[in-house]
Amino acid sequence: MTREKGSICVGIDLGGTSVQVGLVTLEGKLVVCEQFPTLVERGHEAIIDEMAQRAVQLWEKEGFSADSIRGVGVGSPGPLDPETGIVLVTPNLKWENVPLKAMLVDRLSMQVAVDNDAVSATFGEWWVGAGKPYRDVVGLTLGTGVGGGIVLNGHIHHGFQGIGGHIGHMVIKAEGRLCPCGNKGCLEAYASGTAIAERTHEALAGDEATVLRRLDQPLTARTVYEAALKGDPLAHRIFDRTAFYLAVGINNILNILNPQAVVIMGAVANAGELLFHPLLSHLEKMAFARIYQETQILQGRLGEKAGVVGAAGLIARPLDGMMG
Amino acid sequence: MTREKGSICVGIDLGGTSVQVGLVTLEGKLVVCEQFPTLVERGHEAIIDEMAQRAVQLWEKEGFSADSIRGVGVGSPGPLDPETGIVLVTPNLKWENVPLKAMLVDRLSMQVAVDNDAVSATFGEWWVGAGKPYRDVVGLTLGTGVGGGIVLNGHIHHGFQGIGGHIGHMVIKAEGRLCPCGNKGCLEAYASGTAIAERTHEALAGDEATVLRRLDQPLTARTVYEAALKGDPLAHRIFDRTAFYLAVGINNILNILNPQAVVIMGAVANAGELLFHPLLSHLEKMAFARIYQETQILQGRLGEKAGVVGAAGLIARPLDGMMG
Repeated sequence: MTREKGSICVGIDLGGTSVQVGLVTLEGKLVVCEQFPTLVERGHEAIIDEMAQRAVQLWEKEGFSADSIRGVGVGSPGPLDPETGIVLVTPNLKWENVPLKAMLVDRLSMQVAVDNDAVSATFGEWWVGAGKPYRDVVGLTLGTGVGGGIVLNGHIHHGFQGIGGHIGHMVIKAEGRLCPCGNKGCLEAYASGTAIAERTHEALAGDEATVLRRLDQPLTARTVYEAALKGDPLAHRIFDRTAFYLAVGINNILNILNPQAVVIMGAVANAGELLFHPLLSHLEKMAFARIYQETQILQGRLGEKAGVVGAAGLIARPLDGMMG
Repeated sequence: MTREKGSICVGIDLGGTSVQVGLVTLEGKLVVCEQFPTLVERGHEAIIDEMAQRAVQLWEKEGFSADSIRGVGVGSPGPLDPETGIVLVTPNLKWENVPLKAMLVDRLSMQVAVDNDAVSATFGEWWVGAGKPYRDVVGLTLGTGVGGGIVLNGHIHHGFQGIGGHIGHMVIKAEGRLCPCGNKGCLEAYASGTAIAERTHEALAGDEATVLRRLDQPLTARTVYEAALKGDPLAHRIFDRTAFYLAVGINNILNILNPQAVVIMGAVANAGELLFHPLLSHLEKMAFARIYQETQILQGRLGEKAGVVGAAGLIARPLDGMMG
């Protein structure tokens, strides 16, 4: 392990329930990663204080001097402005116009880069994960919500205000299911873990036989997944429909951007073949044949660490991360 | 008018019913433009022969030598590969894998560039039209179908196979109206001129009073537009719904790409305020406020000439047109 000046980047993945802090080499190797709960009720100042303190503790514990740290990258819920590092609004954290970047620079006196959490995860998968062989990668994170990130020609595409990439709020069914954002029919309203649980809950009102009516635990995307693995037909149908909606959204991206690869991340992607098999089958029917044949539809490889690694990548590869 | 070497570009807009050929300066000024019918039944060889002959005749008639012509740009129905200039498939012309670029180089012995027709029109509007002040422009052509083009950071975004930008085949209503492409719920199935006429035709099955039931001419988007101008409520409702679907599609693009400007072109855009007023009103309700406030939603300025001017621009500004 090198201890050279500026050889280590801190990556922070700020989430609504927990924060991950990791140390990452310039080659994208995760050296160590720790996690602590996000105490939302304490407010943004306290959370940002703790992010800074934990980062310092982590590199000191690992025997690095401040000198060997190149900077700190943060993936944060958004929308946010990656140029100013101001988080515009994030319902989970109850933040509004929080100058995250400036506050971390103030506490750590080093280079800080801030980007959207799903963008950071996509950047991580492009840098050293499933998307590594490709120039263009569009990423989707399927978790509590659906996030997105776009890497084109090796550069993150941010758009002119820095708030592009919100693929989860692409409407795929006008006047369809209500999304937490207030619009109807967003991809997030069909393909997030939350939406999978909700759609299953609604399906239970029917009279189809299913083990899901007799659960002694709350209904979540995970319990639906487990029931599907055991062959439950209703749970299977929910995953097939989820795959259908996801295929519609992905096919839209293929038609608009024609990227080399799409990487699917987040907890729902852990369903693996149960999701990917019907997804590819639906996509094959919808997509322009030449696109379907040559585009990679991949599961992320970095798992829960994609955000931390990608956030560190914003520092390690600033020319890729900060353009566009 | 300069007659200097390489000072004039030929722009050709190849359509299913007619071909436009124009001469354009390096600054994007259209010097002259002519039109002739596309004799589809004669096949691609004859059509490409005529394109070449008409181009030569036009510049000779205008007193230019072959030496003063820098090259020929063509906007063609697609999907096509802008790198090889091969038109992959185009139902209107009944072409399949036609090496359009190579065949024109063969006939004219000069530089030829080929791109999708809607991409060329978008490039024209970005170069010297409504999108001129902006770095990023997403274009939509609303005509027989719905085409799209994407200019990001001043470069056309083609995607890795060269077939991105097909915004008209973004599904905005999964399992909705059948699109000519075979999928259901594409933007084209709601917002093309053809779709406007079809949706109106279906609405006539109801009992709402409308002048459109007593027409002595075929029902087209134009007749619906004229009825709406005269205050016909059904025609108005059709335009309002068209604007709603278009707003859904545009909001998707804003969320994904966050471009500075969206330019709407094609015959349907000629409806002007009748389309743009409800479009902006729907968009304001759907869009993230910060995006709505700062993004330009514009009507094209080059009208029917956008394709010719943009095709010429592929030659005049090859570094912008050929990247990405």
